Amino acid sequence: MPHADVTAIPEALTKAQTYEYLNEQVEALCFEQRNWVCNLANSASLLWHAFHSLPGKSQSVNWAGFYVLNPKAESELILGPFMGKVACQTIKFGRGVCGKAAADGKSVVVEDVDTFPGHIACDGDSKSEIVVPIVKDGKVLGVIDIDSTTASTFDEEDRKGLEKLATILADACDW
Amino acid sequence: MPHADVTAIPEALTKAQTYEYLNEQVEALCFEQRNWVCNLANSASLLWHAFHSLPGKSQSVNWAGFYVLNPKAESELILGPFMGKVACQTIKFGRGVCGKAAADGKSVVVEDVDTFPGHIACDGDSKSEIVVPIVKDGKVLGVIDIDSTTASTFDEEDRKGLEKLATILADACDW
Repeated sequence: MPHADVTAIPEALTKAQTYEYLNEQVEALCFEQRNWVCNLANSASLLWHAFHSLPGKSQSVNWAGFYVLNPKAESELILGPFMGKVACQTIKFGRGVCGKAAADGKSVVVEDVDTFPGHIACDGDSKSEIVVPIVKDGKVLGVIDIDSTTASTFDEEDRKGLEKLATILADACDW
Repeated sequence: MPHADVTAIPEALTKAQTYEYLNEQVEALCFEQRNWVCNLANSASLLWHAFHSLPGKSQSVNWAGFYVLNPKAESELILGPFMGKVACQTIKFGRGVCGKAAADGKSVVVEDVDTFPGHIACDGDSKSEIVVPIVKDGKVLGVIDIDSTTASTFDEEDRKGLEKLATILADACDW
């Protein structure tokens, strides 16, 4: 099967079912492949296509990807694989939504980024955001970062689905 | 300036001017940032948006990204950052268009992938392809890979523009 067919996500699925499909596909792609760049690159593609297969606000997703620990700077994230427009290269722990999630090791769902203290506007079109940390053995390895041009795009189902994805990737990759 | 604005590529440019713009932006993004994952991720985004800013066949580009040397296997490429649908994870040197360009250290422009011996159909929709090796000190470090759903999308201008990009990235990143 051509790999691209994996992104043909059935459109009749609910959001919960879409995350279930996505996470099953990521597990399959990571089978016998532990390279983190390769696995995050394909996961970013799956995320992008999953959001755009859903009805409503999920179609407003304009950036889907990853930041990982910067091997050259302490307490700093650096850009990983993603789908979307050119993005900020590094983010200090504690700065903006990504930095907050990385510093606290907890997911952050932001309904309106303009009201988030210290928000970093990589893209002025982004209006809402969800960031989920990737954690292994108590250490933050990176974050999943999703932006949308519509306010209040992300909810509890997104948080649960992305936290499951973060768990899969934490275990499935050599970081 | 928000980083996303870099992808707002002026639409009135010729293909040669678009590559000039793209390569200037990549040089600027790589200034004081030598992390290859970060730099290839933003370059893939720029490439995708550059092709889609051009008229004609360039808009049929359905995959733009990178394969790099697999640190875990000799003479093998592994998927790097990209824009598009889920892609093949590893490619042996010599296999398909990417493997050919990596093995020979030379660019390959394919007008119709169905006539290319040993073509790997990661995506059955892809009809033409250009692959340009990234070479430093005589060693192939990876390839730039662009696919299109239209036959004969890529020409000498693409080859020249992407070979310039490959030279910039070879020097600007720690691999």
